[in-house]
Amino acid sequence: METVAVFGVGLIGGSFALALRKAGFRGRIIGVSSPSTLAAAQRAGAIDEALDAETAARQADLIYLAQPIARILDTIGQLESWVRSTALVTDAGSTKVAIVRRAHIMLRRCPFLGGHPLAGKESRGVESADADLFRGRTYVLTPQHPSDLESPVAVDFIEWLRRAGAEPLITTAQRHDEVVAYTSHLPQLASTALTLVAGRNQRAHTQLRGPALVDSTRLALSPFAIWRDILLTNREQIDRALGEYIEQLEELRASIASREMEEHFLEAASLARTIRQTDESR
Amino acid sequence: METVAVFGVGLIGGSFALALRKAGFRGRIIGVSSPSTLAAAQRAGAIDEALDAETAARQADLIYLAQPIARILDTIGQLESWVRSTALVTDAGSTKVAIVRRAHIMLRRCPFLGGHPLAGKESRGVESADADLFRGRTYVLTPQHPSDLESPVAVDFIEWLRRAGAEPLITTAQRHDEVVAYTSHLPQLASTALTLVAGRNQRAHTQLRGPALVDSTRLALSPFAIWRDILLTNREQIDRALGEYIEQLEELRASIASREMEEHFLEAASLARTIRQTDESR
Repeated sequence: METVAVFGVGLIGGSFALALRKAGFRGRIIGVSSPSTLAAAQRAGAIDEALDAETAARQADLIYLAQPIARILDTIGQLESWVRSTALVTDAGSTKVAIVRRAHIMLRRCPFLGGHPLAGKESRGVESADADLFRGRTYVLTPQHPSDLESPVAVDFIEWLRRAGAEPLITTAQRHDEVVAYTSHLPQLASTALTLVAGRNQRAHTQLRGPALVDSTRLALSPFAIWRDILLTNREQIDRALGEYIEQLEELRASIASREMEEHFLEAASLARTIRQTDESR
Repeated sequence: METVAVFGVGLIGGSFALALRKAGFRGRIIGVSSPSTLAAAQRAGAIDEALDAETAARQADLIYLAQPIARILDTIGQLESWVRSTALVTDAGSTKVAIVRRAHIMLRRCPFLGGHPLAGKESRGVESADADLFRGRTYVLTPQHPSDLESPVAVDFIEWLRRAGAEPLITTAQRHDEVVAYTSHLPQLASTALTLVAGRNQRAHTQLRGPALVDSTRLALSPFAIWRDILLTNREQIDRALGEYIEQLEELRASIASREMEEHFLEAASLARTIRQTDESR
């Protein structure tokens, strides 16, 4: 691949562009974004030039969609008449089923490969972009058919991801959305709910809170602009995860003063350690 | 006060002793603990000498109970026949109603002042003790009558807490237990439940987890040995907090794809910022 068009040059799109450069990519990187974002992306050295969507799509070998999910869905609807048949369209959206389904219906001229880098930062925007954002992080890829991974551009793209330090993980869009409902979307809503309940109850007693409250309310600072689309495009899985969580809380509530509580704590500590071992071994 | 007896020379008891020394206390500090803990406390320079409970209690002006809650309740039952009438007994237990009630019934010869330093560390034991553990932290005091704060030893004790950098906060045992049910006990059980649900569901897909899962499962590593007593001595308030949390989660669950979700996120972000502003201003 020689020409890459990044649609949405924010934290993720900007980091992908910087990571390509750092890994030795010598081709052209085009940015497609709002004028102010494009100016910031050029200052950050993330893109070589700024073009409109159609002009960029007509020239690109790889089209990397790093916009909010709703914008990705819109863009996929527009690309069909612009893309080259040898191109690959990929995305970095946080849910995969809705995006992959849309691409399957709307994009016939070239292959589409769903993606989701499990990487992020508290700060947003291309000013926070980082060539090493993906290093040591899982990069989920959700092909509809194994052959989606075999086109020349797809092979190239995955090789560049590896050079940027990412660890590609192939799974289905369905499986991805099921698991992240538990590992990402449930923690978000659990923190939002906890912040509402604990924050209202301690408001008159602001000194009465320890470090646990500060940690448990951190995710509640996440902007709704990101979460709106995630909730809309994964609501069934999120509903299921919330239902299981509520059931588990009811079980703990019924065990507050019973012996079963110790078993719950032991199992939870063991699972928490497993999560950390996996994290450290990577 | 000239002689201080610290019962339970672990992280909190050891830190209190070290903080007294650093703040300039020139009296005697006696440790009452298991032999291995006492040896470690002497190596750490936290105590001047190790005595049995009765001998220590007969000599002390201030008796500082920093044991697990169940041991504090036991110790209070033994102190009556040993303490000097001019002494003050205080504690550092994480719940207050059960302890203050026990002291009210069992300890008549000298005053009792319930306490709870809102400070801690992930590591335990006197090896982790730190003369600055209480610095900038709220130190809750729960007198049964305002006069409990006025005895010469109580006035002295509170002055030493301030010299150690702690910020004393006077409230009732009842109010303390109500608020920490939301700010400490609920976050613990929310994390334990989340770890059980998310951990079981992602076990076969360990690569599919981002930083949110690691943060949200940290409290689940807390040892049950500490939590058993907290749950037993504050179960009504915890039951109420869990009930409100479950209700709030049901409300979010019913709003996944509705406009109300934005209001929930905005309110939660605002409360989360308030919690942080309080934290930073201290």
